[in-house]
Amino acid sequence: MKIICTQENLNKGLNLVSNIANKNSNLLILNNVLLRADKDGLILITTDLEVGIKAFVRSKIEDPGAFTVDAKLLNNFIGLLPKENIELFLQDNDLSIKNKNQQTTIKGLEAEDFPLIPEIEKENELIISSSDLKKSLGQVITAASTDSSRIEINAVNFCFKKDQLILAATDSYRLAEKIIKITNGQEANLIIPLKTLQELLKILNEEEEQKVKVYFKENQILFTFNSVELVSRVIDGKYPDYSQIIPESFATSAKCDLNKLVPAIKAVALFCKQGINDIRLSFDEHTQEIIVATASSNTGKSVARVSAKVDGNNNEVVFNYRYLLDGLNHIKTSDVILQINNNSSPGLLKPTDSQNYIYLVMPIRQ
Amino acid sequence: MKIICTQENLNKGLNLVSNIANKNSNLLILNNVLLRADKDGLILITTDLEVGIKAFVRSKIEDPGAFTVDAKLLNNFIGLLPKENIELFLQDNDLSIKNKNQQTTIKGLEAEDFPLIPEIEKENELIISSSDLKKSLGQVITAASTDSSRIEINAVNFCFKKDQLILAATDSYRLAEKIIKITNGQEANLIIPLKTLQELLKILNEEEEQKVKVYFKENQILFTFNSVELVSRVIDGKYPDYSQIIPESFATSAKCDLNKLVPAIKAVALFCKQGINDIRLSFDEHTQEIIVATASSNTGKSVARVSAKVDGNNNEVVFNYRYLLDGLNHIKTSDVILQINNNSSPGLLKPTDSQNYIYLVMPIRQ
Repeated sequence: MKIICTQENLNKGLNLVSNIANKNSNLLILNNVLLRADKDGLILITTDLEVGIKAFVRSKIEDPGAFTVDAKLLNNFIGLLPKENIELFLQDNDLSIKNKNQQTTIKGLEAEDFPLIPEIEKENELIISSSDLKKSLGQVITAASTDSSRIEINAVNFCFKKDQLILAATDSYRLAEKIIKITNGQEANLIIPLKTLQELLKILNEEEEQKVKVYFKENQILFTFNSVELVSRVIDGKYPDYSQIIPESFATSAKCDLNKLVPAIKAVALFCKQGINDIRLSFDEHTQEIIVATASSNTGKSVARVSAKVDGNNNEVVFNYRYLLDGLNHIKTSDVILQINNNSSPGLLKPTDSQNYIYLVMPIRQ
Repeated sequence: MKIICTQENLNKGLNLVSNIANKNSNLLILNNVLLRADKDGLILITTDLEVGIKAFVRSKIEDPGAFTVDAKLLNNFIGLLPKENIELFLQDNDLSIKNKNQQTTIKGLEAEDFPLIPEIEKENELIISSSDLKKSLGQVITAASTDSSRIEINAVNFCFKKDQLILAATDSYRLAEKIIKITNGQEANLIIPLKTLQELLKILNEEEEQKVKVYFKENQILFTFNSVELVSRVIDGKYPDYSQIIPESFATSAKCDLNKLVPAIKAVALFCKQGINDIRLSFDEHTQEIIVATASSNTGKSVARVSAKVDGNNNEVVFNYRYLLDGLNHIKTSDVILQINNNSSPGLLKPTDSQNYIYLVMPIRQ
């Protein structure tokens, strides 16, 4: 194996793939990145057996071959090299890295011991703009369960229809749903692990704006960019039927300025009793205000009035303020719409610009 | 007590004093900030019994008085309020805080239980520019011991002379010394706790450029800014006589580009054996290079050649790379001068622009 490439290209590729390696694993080789040099160029591959990532690095292959070394070590090392050409080659079963003034050898493991990454045929592609996908994933994963023992909801549900993709996530305390317009969709329902989507978001944040191509078969999904491919297993299970918990109507609705509501909630929440995150929201149709108040405290109490356009009954409800802030954080319009029924029915947040994002929070019964 | 002030002024004052409150302490009131409103205005005071900080807040005092509340809570809360006038007053033994749309009460403790902050007469003042003090303290505290059981060196030595102030710090593995020009100094030697200087640096970072006035008596030192005063105890002890360990001459001297040397050291250091931070620096007079190499490793090995102007004997020495980087990080010129004798005598780093900063590192005997 002998490869020549620039520091910039190799560094970019390693940044994209290194994150999922180096997780705690009993299988030592999963800490490593596979460098595979063949007629197509240099491919960097990492996997945690659930997600696999390939990055293509522009390079000159003088001698094909493959080898694996610690991904984090190689990434950190290449990141510190000057912007010069780099030579990578095998010497005495170690990886040698050479540039103008530096000469380094890294111990590694044989490429043949590296797990295979599943291949998906690139048929029936679906195209989504990377900025749409990034924004939408950010909006829904905030509600996904982080409990890895609840595999179906430690995930996001991807429901593909002919002209839309519906993303949904819940941890049973809140639910986020986002609809993205697509064309040429094939009907399918896939539950994608949260970890996969967190990796995908990292790649979306590092890559420039582009069209992302999505392919899937029953138990695998593939996202492809210009120079990166991410393949992941799909969870075998049934996503909870959440549509039934979305209220069809609300007794009270309010519209208010996010930049006034969010600091008011944060200020009042400072007085929550430790470990209890309850705050009370009262909607006053008469004064046209939402009144945010501490629900229980031992350090003091706080009340903030936020002017709002309130329609419907005077009404109040107690929420976990963290769940409320998670949702408000993903509303991208200057005003937010809040809708409630009573203290046993979920409240709803949505932006003012369209109907394609909703965030539901379960109230806390007092 | 009744005080009216702006959110901006109160927020700024609380930011300056809150950090030293809320440290782990058995004395509950040390978590609090003392608000003292009298004819001079509002003064905020915090202390950990070693350091005391006072901040003066422009305000209208409608009724004098004093009270204490949790400093971190108050600081976080005021930081979240809109930029409006705020009223603070006592009601039913709680602190009430009111602005246009918010009403909050915070439980607190009586002012009379708050420890007294020592007063120092403002005589024989010494004036230092805040930017000089900030830069100089940053350069020396990096070498101070962080072991709080070694009180004399968990500190910086301030040696005042007629026309200079010599700051020195060491943890016995490295030593930093910085000389600041002053006028009208009185001869004195004061050992100032590291914690005090870390607080002082935080204030220097938040305050705008100004003249800092310094006053001291035997066991106390006072730093005053426009609107802040920091008073600290001085350590009662003798600072190690470090001048004897600074070599009078060096066998080898080299000058090289910091932006080439630092990444080379970091890259080579990635291959250090875990827990062992040794790297070898070889000075080659013939090739005019410093050769940086891993001294011991089990993940691989790395060699980087950095071009340098080398004078004197070919020579080599092993350093702890962390100590080396700490020193290089505080050299503010584009080139650095490195000087060594052998593997049992300290090496020296200094900037190229003046003789007023030196950083010594003990080598590691192999």
